[in-house]
Amino acid sequence: MSYTYDYPHYAVTADIVVFTIRDGTLQVLLVKRGAAPFKGRWALPGGYLKPDEDLEGCARRELEEETGLAGFYLEQLYTFGAIKRDPRERVITVAYFALIRSDAVSLRPATDVVGADWTALDALPPLAFDHEQIIAYARERLAAKLDYSTLAFQFLPERFTMRELHAVYETVLGKPLDRRNFYKKMLASGELQETAESRLEGAHRPAAVYRLRHPGEVRITR
Amino acid sequence: MSYTYDYPHYAVTADIVVFTIRDGTLQVLLVKRGAAPFKGRWALPGGYLKPDEDLEGCARRELEEETGLAGFYLEQLYTFGAIKRDPRERVITVAYFALIRSDAVSLRPATDVVGADWTALDALPPLAFDHEQIIAYARERLAAKLDYSTLAFQFLPERFTMRELHAVYETVLGKPLDRRNFYKKMLASGELQETAESRLEGAHRPAAVYRLRHPGEVRITR
Repeated sequence: MSYTYDYPHYAVTADIVVFTIRDGTLQVLLVKRGAAPFKGRWALPGGYLKPDEDLEGCARRELEEETGLAGFYLEQLYTFGAIKRDPRERVITVAYFALIRSDAVSLRPATDVVGADWTALDALPPLAFDHEQIIAYARERLAAKLDYSTLAFQFLPERFTMRELHAVYETVLGKPLDRRNFYKKMLASGELQETAESRLEGAHRPAAVYRLRHPGEVRITR
Repeated sequence: MSYTYDYPHYAVTADIVVFTIRDGTLQVLLVKRGAAPFKGRWALPGGYLKPDEDLEGCARRELEEETGLAGFYLEQLYTFGAIKRDPRERVITVAYFALIRSDAVSLRPATDVVGADWTALDALPPLAFDHEQIIAYARERLAAKLDYSTLAFQFLPERFTMRELHAVYETVLGKPLDRRNFYKKMLASGELQETAESRLEGAHRPAAVYRLRHPGEVRITR
């Protein structure tokens, strides 16, 4: 089948940057390409837009086909359209990002790829296309949004301690954060609800267990 | 000339939401369409991506062709790709937004349009395509970014008083802001530099005149 148009049209794809925290590091989900170009190289999950799906639908379908992951919070990140970003022809890609708890899922790669795995952001292999650039941009956005939204809670189970939340922020931002100020700021945000539960953490007295006041949504906190 | 591909390709456009403040209201730049579809209706400036330009280059070229405006800070907003957003065929549009001082420019519409003008956001006529939705999204982003960046200063001349800055924020956010808190927050941001100049405003004592410490760039303030 062929498609003919009377002015230039472009291939459109969606690519997805899925972040998780594993082994105390920020990691990203990569797939190993099964076909040219960049066959055998690691890349972001993603693929071509179909005529009957919207952009986010394309991102969700490709993510599920290539990694088995479904049902996560996705946010549109940025659209990359540099002229030579694909060696075959001009491809405009709409990038999305997602945050998940990797301990709650298992990867089941299917179409087009020969593997899917988590990789630490500070140990990325050479990637296909401009995917390093897309990941760098996603990381920047993620770090910025931590400061003014409840995005980081996507990395945590429904119930968590302040110490766990603090560890998430330190891991994503890649720097130590004063514990006392952090606790104060989080409690002042109005987003946390203390539960009746408490938990032993190390040699300390039992730690309060919190949950989000509005779970299941990402909220802007100012 | 015709273009043939062996899988679906899409028309790609850039549309630009240009905000200004005029007569104490937040206004947006619209063009009157000279051709079908929606001939004679108001729309955002924008048009088709050419093979030899990147996405932002397309936005800048279309903005200049249709309105005469050039050389402004542009930021990618969001990509809209709903299946039926254009009645002719599927068109993916990458939306940009810009903030300018309307008193510093004059409009000179050229190709494809029969007019260009500023319209208050609370008095928009019916628009072509999904342009109401794009403008609503741009306004939301603009209001959010006021809180954590120096974006609003794009609306002001190089030198300004605290009263003028306060008026910009109130106009964009569409609500009164406590003057004393606002002044305090702005002075604490570290982005302002007091000049040797002062200015008479109404019946008050002379007001200090400020400038940005880093003019010509939009900075994230936290």
